[in-house]
Amino acid sequence: MSLLVVGSVAFDTVKTPFGEASEVLGGSATFFSTSASYFTDVRLVAVVGEDFPDKHVNFLKMRNIDVTGLERAKGKTFRWKGQYGYALNEAETLDTQLNVFESFRPDIPDKYKDSDVVFLANIDPDLQRDVLRQVDKPKLVAADTMNFWIEGKRASLLETLKLVDILLINDAEARQLTGEHNLVKVARAIFKMGPSTLVIKRGEYGVLLFHGDAVFSAPAYPLEDVFDPTGAGDTFAGGFMGYIANIMDFKESVVRRATVMGSVMASFNVEDFSLDRIRELDYKEIEGRYREFKSLAHFDDI
Amino acid sequence: MSLLVVGSVAFDTVKTPFGEASEVLGGSATFFSTSASYFTDVRLVAVVGEDFPDKHVNFLKMRNIDVTGLERAKGKTFRWKGQYGYALNEAETLDTQLNVFESFRPDIPDKYKDSDVVFLANIDPDLQRDVLRQVDKPKLVAADTMNFWIEGKRASLLETLKLVDILLINDAEARQLTGEHNLVKVARAIFKMGPSTLVIKRGEYGVLLFHGDAVFSAPAYPLEDVFDPTGAGDTFAGGFMGYIANIMDFKESVVRRATVMGSVMASFNVEDFSLDRIRELDYKEIEGRYREFKSLAHFDDI
Repeated sequence: MSLLVVGSVAFDTVKTPFGEASEVLGGSATFFSTSASYFTDVRLVAVVGEDFPDKHVNFLKMRNIDVTGLERAKGKTFRWKGQYGYALNEAETLDTQLNVFESFRPDIPDKYKDSDVVFLANIDPDLQRDVLRQVDKPKLVAADTMNFWIEGKRASLLETLKLVDILLINDAEARQLTGEHNLVKVARAIFKMGPSTLVIKRGEYGVLLFHGDAVFSAPAYPLEDVFDPTGAGDTFAGGFMGYIANIMDFKESVVRRATVMGSVMASFNVEDFSLDRIRELDYKEIEGRYREFKSLAHFDDI
Repeated sequence: MSLLVVGSVAFDTVKTPFGEASEVLGGSATFFSTSASYFTDVRLVAVVGEDFPDKHVNFLKMRNIDVTGLERAKGKTFRWKGQYGYALNEAETLDTQLNVFESFRPDIPDKYKDSDVVFLANIDPDLQRDVLRQVDKPKLVAADTMNFWIEGKRASLLETLKLVDILLINDAEARQLTGEHNLVKVARAIFKMGPSTLVIKRGEYGVLLFHGDAVFSAPAYPLEDVFDPTGAGDTFAGGFMGYIANIMDFKESVVRRATVMGSVMASFNVEDFSLDRIRELDYKEIEGRYREFKSLAHFDDI
């Protein structure tokens, strides 16, 4: 089934304890669509500047991602610069240059309007609703957000959440959004805002999924070498949503497997800078890592 | 099989956002032995003062814990006072009065010397080795420790670790002990110190087990009401070691189940002050909670 993503395409400059990379391909929509492309047809809506090289567009096309909605605007592409310490769980942002992203107004191509599944990456909640106004009647709407919108545009974000089925968010943001610390209470509060599924991303501690009455805890893969965590959350979302869009079923067993599949994709992504590790994965590698997650989490009945 | 534990028995005064309790039964050996008593015969070695009421001793006896090794010394029982914020993951110690615990020299009763399994709770590593010198030839030795000994008695702790099969420790302590941040590297470093099994306790994020080449991630149960986390680590250790001592097999599948059983017992313990929630559990409750952990962690093959 068709999966529409609206988000950012960026150049990232990243420093980690293990090395640095300058002006490499990044952005929420890039990580998401590359990850999702292993599972389903992806339709991308984002904006880049005049400086965005064809090689990156060709890469997205090579991954069979529909780039009709990739607008090229006058000016420079969005740039982000950040660094991580050994803990690797939170980036320190050193510089953000929104450039063409500042005036981004998502324009959904006609051929995208019948999309079955929509993923609203972390952008202004006004724009997230604007996207939903332009699509026909998606079967499933998922969204991400961040502390910036929770603090600065709370009323608009709450309007958006009324239209969202699945909220993907990290634990600190989930707590900030609800004012609750306990994650069971967090989930209950978020369900009252609209979503019926909550995916709480906890970095090196894995993912906690609330789906109706069910709770599922997916571990994170204990990698010996985590190289660069940039994009891990969006790569997770891509695997998660791509897997669901492919099966186009939203029952609990599917959402559990999708949570693991998102974790599988994120575990690859952090092994190298940018999305270098997930540019050309073999599906056998993905299946192999999924089996390793199975082994990581398995225990027998007593 | 017989399980020997050496540790503290204390009076705790605890304040949490949900209430407070004054001079309630606590201490590592108390939580451990109560939890382990659901699975195997437990032999306790600890010291209390003249102020320690018979009702607490009778409770331990009622749980079928052998208290021959519970020494009653002149003076007052060990007291700890602490408080927790909403995060509940780390206690702030307000007061520690070691009292009779300060001059505690574990004296292992003759009838305990044939113990199959030994758990050295968090005490001075000199005393931990002193215990091992007094027992015949245990099949399995497990130990806990803390930042205080890692900083202040590192050389002695390293001597103890040479004699230990299983180290149970929290993630911050594991990182402090090894100087590594990445937990895979942490495990490799600790295996070089002696243990062949490492249990990393991560509070609300569950437990990561390294057992030879195998890695197992056990989730924590997402409770809506965590009342008092005091003793959760020792209650985990009691369930974990008690389950292993009962089956008296140390193969991977048993250790995985033991990790979940420890998590089950800890999940009960945090539901009330002191060890009130685990005083009289029904074995059916334990089995039921184990099944809930199974459901929490389960996902199908792709």
